[in-house]
Amino acid sequence: MNIHKVGVLGGGQLGRMLVEAASRLNIQIIILDAPVDSPAKQIEATQQHVHGDFTDADKIKHLANSVDVLTTEIEHVNATILETLARERIVNVQPSPSTIRLIQDKYTQKIHLTKHSIPVAEYRETLNHEAILSAGKEFGYPLMLKSKTLAYDGRGNYVLRTEQDIPDALNTLSKTPLYAERWAPFVKELAIMVVRRANGEIRSYPVVETIHKENICHLVIAPAQVDGVVRQRAQAVAEDAIKTLDGAGVFGVEMFLMDDGAILVNEIAPRPHNSGHYTIEACETSQYENHLRAILDIPLGSTSMKVPASIMVNILGVSNDMQETLRPCAESLSIDGATIHLYGKRECRKGRKMGHITVVGESMTQTQERIKPILATIEPGVTRDLALSPLVGIIMGSDSDLPVMKIGAQILKDFCVPFELSIVSAHRTPLRMVEYAKSAHKRGLKVIIAGAGGAAHLPGMVAAMTPLPVIGVPVRGSSLDGVDSLYSIVQMPRGVPVATVAINNSTNAALLAIRQLGAFIPGFLTKMERYMETMETEVLKKVQRLDSVGWDSY
Amino acid sequence: MNIHKVGVLGGGQLGRMLVEAASRLNIQIIILDAPVDSPAKQIEATQQHVHGDFTDADKIKHLANSVDVLTTEIEHVNATILETLARERIVNVQPSPSTIRLIQDKYTQKIHLTKHSIPVAEYRETLNHEAILSAGKEFGYPLMLKSKTLAYDGRGNYVLRTEQDIPDALNTLSKTPLYAERWAPFVKELAIMVVRRANGEIRSYPVVETIHKENICHLVIAPAQVDGVVRQRAQAVAEDAIKTLDGAGVFGVEMFLMDDGAILVNEIAPRPHNSGHYTIEACETSQYENHLRAILDIPLGSTSMKVPASIMVNILGVSNDMQETLRPCAESLSIDGATIHLYGKRECRKGRKMGHITVVGESMTQTQERIKPILATIEPGVTRDLALSPLVGIIMGSDSDLPVMKIGAQILKDFCVPFELSIVSAHRTPLRMVEYAKSAHKRGLKVIIAGAGGAAHLPGMVAAMTPLPVIGVPVRGSSLDGVDSLYSIVQMPRGVPVATVAINNSTNAALLAIRQLGAFIPGFLTKMERYMETMETEVLKKVQRLDSVGWDSY
Repeated sequence: MNIHKVGVLGGGQLGRMLVEAASRLNIQIIILDAPVDSPAKQIEATQQHVHGDFTDADKIKHLANSVDVLTTEIEHVNATILETLARERIVNVQPSPSTIRLIQDKYTQKIHLTKHSIPVAEYRETLNHEAILSAGKEFGYPLMLKSKTLAYDGRGNYVLRTEQDIPDALNTLSKTPLYAERWAPFVKELAIMVVRRANGEIRSYPVVETIHKENICHLVIAPAQVDGVVRQRAQAVAEDAIKTLDGAGVFGVEMFLMDDGAILVNEIAPRPHNSGHYTIEACETSQYENHLRAILDIPLGSTSMKVPASIMVNILGVSNDMQETLRPCAESLSIDGATIHLYGKRECRKGRKMGHITVVGESMTQTQERIKPILATIEPGVTRDLALSPLVGIIMGSDSDLPVMKIGAQILKDFCVPFELSIVSAHRTPLRMVEYAKSAHKRGLKVIIAGAGGAAHLPGMVAAMTPLPVIGVPVRGSSLDGVDSLYSIVQMPRGVPVATVAINNSTNAALLAIRQLGAFIPGFLTKMERYMETMETEVLKKVQRLDSVGWDSY
Repeated sequence: MNIHKVGVLGGGQLGRMLVEAASRLNIQIIILDAPVDSPAKQIEATQQHVHGDFTDADKIKHLANSVDVLTTEIEHVNATILETLARERIVNVQPSPSTIRLIQDKYTQKIHLTKHSIPVAEYRETLNHEAILSAGKEFGYPLMLKSKTLAYDGRGNYVLRTEQDIPDALNTLSKTPLYAERWAPFVKELAIMVVRRANGEIRSYPVVETIHKENICHLVIAPAQVDGVVRQRAQAVAEDAIKTLDGAGVFGVEMFLMDDGAILVNEIAPRPHNSGHYTIEACETSQYENHLRAILDIPLGSTSMKVPASIMVNILGVSNDMQETLRPCAESLSIDGATIHLYGKRECRKGRKMGHITVVGESMTQTQERIKPILATIEPGVTRDLALSPLVGIIMGSDSDLPVMKIGAQILKDFCVPFELSIVSAHRTPLRMVEYAKSAHKRGLKVIIAGAGGAAHLPGMVAAMTPLPVIGVPVRGSSLDGVDSLYSIVQMPRGVPVATVAINNSTNAALLAIRQLGAFIPGFLTKMERYMETMETEVLKKVQRLDSVGWDSY
């Protein structure tokens, strides 16, 4: 544990959260930014901060002389001087200046990714009106027009609906050269923070879903409520992309999830990223601490989530009225699991990032419920109901089992348990059964309910191929009164258990699944207690009625 | 969300962690402490900090004039001037100066608690040698001798083994008046952080276990691995104790758990406390943020744990060698779930609190495994294996079921699942069964395995009274081949599920329980996957042998 000094170009909220992480490790951060009381400088009392522009070569040199490592909280810095400092070994710059330069120009970034076979939306350079027209012919409309440089938080993007929009677009984006991208009709936007240590070791944070509003990040949902296969694919693409870049640090990889499950990389940030704020409360080591560990070449921390679910919402200035802007924060003081991060910005302006709130919970269902009153203060009347990943899978051997199994499905629905329901036959779709059973836990399922009749092999066969608990529902067939199904399901050999319930009793299968969830998700346990009380009350009412009416008239 | 200014007497690590929490809420903290770069001042860049002694009346007055609320991070402050400031309404002091004064004198504190019927160890004033002798006659030896004032971190305590120790004790504790306490032969030391808002609202953090080394806090285990009944009792005692004190803030309540389950209050701290450091990583809102919320009279945050388990270890100076002292931190960089907190103290001294490490995990089993290599750098050769609270309860109707049920117990042992095993008979100990079933989830159990034979009512009856999943093992009796047991267990009415396994198959009951745990505790899921692979390998070996030996010689 050596004492380190880290210089950071930029003293905004990202720098501030770097300082938070650094202080706990006795790492001193020295900031270069113009405001004397920039967010990051406020919480590091050193007199060594440099007051000036983070593109100013002299100031950067001055900072470089007093630190062990130089990093940035924004990519729009002076890459040339960083290259010189690194080349002349005056200071260690991380990530490498070549990476920063590459990312500064989004068009060059795209070419680089294409060259390394990273999937991106089709694009072409459009330096004038004619080139844009020609791109429109090739890619169709809507067409995404983007500034190559100095673009962030949606600034520098223009969506062309038709050719007629071109003059206005050129006018709006006049400052930098442009390129055009084929419109990506994504189903979700995903993001991953990837951290790489100087020695090449890479770790990924979970895949999250980002929801943008007016091109600015609004919500970050962690983990993303997508299929496990998509999650793995996104992680592989993100890691492959980062492996093509030089230098250490965390990198934010923004991606599109397409209708067919394909992943396209949108863009990369060579620094801590808004989509990784949630890691402070929700992960074992935050993106900020891991950025410091990576650039200082000390062991990386765990990127695993330590809570089941989290949602982050950005607090943007609604006007220059601070009180009005901070209303969601006032609301969140009364919300369990909510943590407020204000950035210490003295002045509020419309659209300015003033802070964020991270809400954590025992499940995504609970987290979503918790954040609703906060979102209501930001977007009154807007509901953002996520399609939650299922926790329970109901499968049955045949659609003839559905009348029995749907009763259990209704119970899960009544308890607000996210579930999926499908037909998987051991004898008629054996390969589908293998795939279902093998992938179930990777897709986020916590328990499987399998119903089958006769020579009822489905529950036991699925149990043989999943580490999850499997609940078997013996469905009564036309002969033997269901005893055939019961014995087929319950009399499993040692080593492969099936939790068997009574014949045709999918109600109890669902209730058993909820009890299993409730052992770890207190909200479901409370609901189960209430359900049991209701059962008791209903029987007691019948007692009363029997007493008052008499057994002969009952 | 108003902008607040809070003055803090003392700028050590507790003040520093208050600043961390304050910055995120745009609350400005102004510190009064002598060192210009005290831990707390380092991370709040305001020029308004006051440099001086936190017992200096003038300095306190100066600080009071520039803040909305005045609080302390240490109780050994100038209570008289605080009383004056509060009485003259110059500043709001929280907690109230009378509480600080009361707590400064541990003897007065004891009298106060006794007066309010809070259980404490017997004590009496011992102002001289004779009084100590007389206390020794009354309470016996060992006898605890304590300084009334200026005592913390074990300083001011002396354990008298015999009368002969009295002169040395008087010599050691010469500076302040003394009192004697009957030695409390506790089984564990427990602690709870209680937070109270000015409006009287009270919330408690979980009960934790503290392990001291040479009278200084060494480990904090959250939640304490004790029975749910003990947890509830400790919480009630702690809250009752805090209700007797005036003012807002967090309070640390240290307690003894006695052999008979009784709780005795040891002492109270009117401020954030070492036993609450873990709340930063492990709880929905930290003790530091809740202290600020309480004294500013804004809504309190949730005190629930957001992770299943955490263990905190203090980093004390081993000498004046910083590198040597920080070895546990260097080790913990490679430990998943470990977060280092260094306090920015420039000089290392033997016994000085330099930082702490909090480790979190998916279960107490995992957390304990994670922290072992860190503890090994502090206490080589010492193993501190906790008796973990059981996650699974195995019960059976009669000891005649034990030969069947112990096979499942062995599986749980092999998988390192903490479990309990007992006899609970539906027909012969019905009340015990009710109590067992009703309390199971409160005691921390996640699943119950119940074995019974014949008219096997135990699993179903237990399931009728617990919201937890119940796994039923039909035990084969002398007649009917176990079918009687199977039907009695599996054919439960709608509403009350029992997860039934094959007749006599407690192996599968245990494996099913582990699968249920594994759905939420990834470590168990991984072990289950490995177990299933081993089963496969073993069968494949038999295939090989059959192939090579031939079926006729097999």
